[in-house]
Amino acid sequence: MNVAVLSGGVGGARMLDGLARVLAPGDLTAIVNTGDDFSHWGLHIAPDLDTVMYTLSGLGDEQRGWGLRGETFRALSMVERYGGDAWFQLGDLDLGTHIVRSEALRRGDSLTDVTARLFRGAGVAHRVVPMSDGRRATMLDTTTHGTLAFQDWFVRERAAPPVTRVWFDGDTAPGPGVVDAIANADVVIVAPSNPYVSIDPILTLAGVRDAVAARPVVAVSPIRAGKAVKGPLASMIEQLAGVPASAAAVADHYGGVIDAMVVESGDAVPVRSRETAVVMTDRDDRARLAREVLSFAESLL
Amino acid sequence: MNVAVLSGGVGGARMLDGLARVLAPGDLTAIVNTGDDFSHWGLHIAPDLDTVMYTLSGLGDEQRGWGLRGETFRALSMVERYGGDAWFQLGDLDLGTHIVRSEALRRGDSLTDVTARLFRGAGVAHRVVPMSDGRRATMLDTTTHGTLAFQDWFVRERAAPPVTRVWFDGDTAPGPGVVDAIANADVVIVAPSNPYVSIDPILTLAGVRDAVAARPVVAVSPIRAGKAVKGPLASMIEQLAGVPASAAAVADHYGGVIDAMVVESGDAVPVRSRETAVVMTDRDDRARLAREVLSFAESLL
Repeated sequence: MNVAVLSGGVGGARMLDGLARVLAPGDLTAIVNTGDDFSHWGLHIAPDLDTVMYTLSGLGDEQRGWGLRGETFRALSMVERYGGDAWFQLGDLDLGTHIVRSEALRRGDSLTDVTARLFRGAGVAHRVVPMSDGRRATMLDTTTHGTLAFQDWFVRERAAPPVTRVWFDGDTAPGPGVVDAIANADVVIVAPSNPYVSIDPILTLAGVRDAVAARPVVAVSPIRAGKAVKGPLASMIEQLAGVPASAAAVADHYGGVIDAMVVESGDAVPVRSRETAVVMTDRDDRARLAREVLSFAESLL
Repeated sequence: MNVAVLSGGVGGARMLDGLARVLAPGDLTAIVNTGDDFSHWGLHIAPDLDTVMYTLSGLGDEQRGWGLRGETFRALSMVERYGGDAWFQLGDLDLGTHIVRSEALRRGDSLTDVTARLFRGAGVAHRVVPMSDGRRATMLDTTTHGTLAFQDWFVRERAAPPVTRVWFDGDTAPGPGVVDAIANADVVIVAPSNPYVSIDPILTLAGVRDAVAARPVVAVSPIRAGKAVKGPLASMIEQLAGVPASAAAVADHYGGVIDAMVVESGDAVPVRSRETAVVMTDRDDRARLAREVLSFAESLL
């Protein structure tokens, strides 16, 4: 079975880690959100791509859920000493990733090409592509801070400003191979990522929503019993959809795109569903969930 | 006594460290070579300014003679993992300096302004200015590798390619305050740096050679008994002046600019001289040499 996955950062990365343990490299393409990408210290930072890379490579800090294991923040300590811009915590190892990516982009390489090189260097065999080579930025209108770019809202403002609208700025061209990977997939899996700020950026690219909708699509719920597995999703559902957070609210948001959903036992959704534990407790448990998602997907074909 | 010092990296930094222990902040201006500055990993790197900053602040690695004490190379290890550009060893702490400098330059700050901010952050009270805010690059014609920029010759090629000519490319404007600091100095000290690649870049800036020549000038010899205290100077003298390395050859090179020279006991020069130990063994010994240089300078006024 050939699988394309739409993914954001942490939750998606864990799902992908499970799928990569179950599927051969040729059978999996991960299409990763880059709407959170931003420039900091003159570097091009792609948080979701890096979270996926660090998770799939086993280099990641599994306790913290992001960044690299054994990370240090010595460059940052010097930046702080000089009174420099220290609101975003860039680790020393992590800097190496951003430096190589930024150098390649300055040379004129595409984000898709340098992403492939970085993942190879990190020892990841499965195919991971950015959703887009151009700038497609996730913007949030808030009630208290006007319009914020994603990292300004999420990191600098700690996701506190209530959100009235999420929109996307910039180039709508998907990355090379993104639409083909979807069209050639037996099934598309929507990872348990935030629909508003991780999956929608991908779906708004030219041709992507239609390509996805034309395939069998299984979403994995990022909500369990009314609570987000991670991050600010629950309050975003309340603010943006005007309903309490639930797997059903996520299914409604994806209406017309998904055919089925893997949900936590007891969570009801208005599409075909398979109930299981959607929270992955460790790396083995990721493979367990991946197998359940794939077996459910197979039953839909 | 108000003193202006022309300085390169390691040897000059040690001399400046001694002078800073003897002179009040208002009485010393260090004018530092930036002909070695270069761009790497998208960062503006100013090796001589940083060596001076790390040495004066006490943050430097005194054993190694350059870089920061307790430095690590974790970002570099990741760059190597990805097959990136790893020929220049940038440490994690050091990266913080380059990141803040580069950010400031991108914002439109001058190198002079950001240098002042960096030195303040590092806790240095004395005034240190770059020789220039523009790009003034030291270039070396070699017999084996054509024309090389300084770091390509010095670090990448380990100063091995024989040099037939040193020249300077780019903007000839000195930094703001450089000519004034020289004109207002009771004495100008030429640090024990490489005349060809550390001091000449400063002297070739518009108005600087004349301003220096108009003041009492004492050079400190970078050569002791025919050997360079540090670096490739001895072979450069042989290649460029066609004579064996000696303090006299350095004095000849500075002909018309310097009035006197502090030399190693036993080294003869064709200008007024004071003999002493020109190699500084530790931080206290730097103050010892500084006092001797200042007392000699005073005797010339």
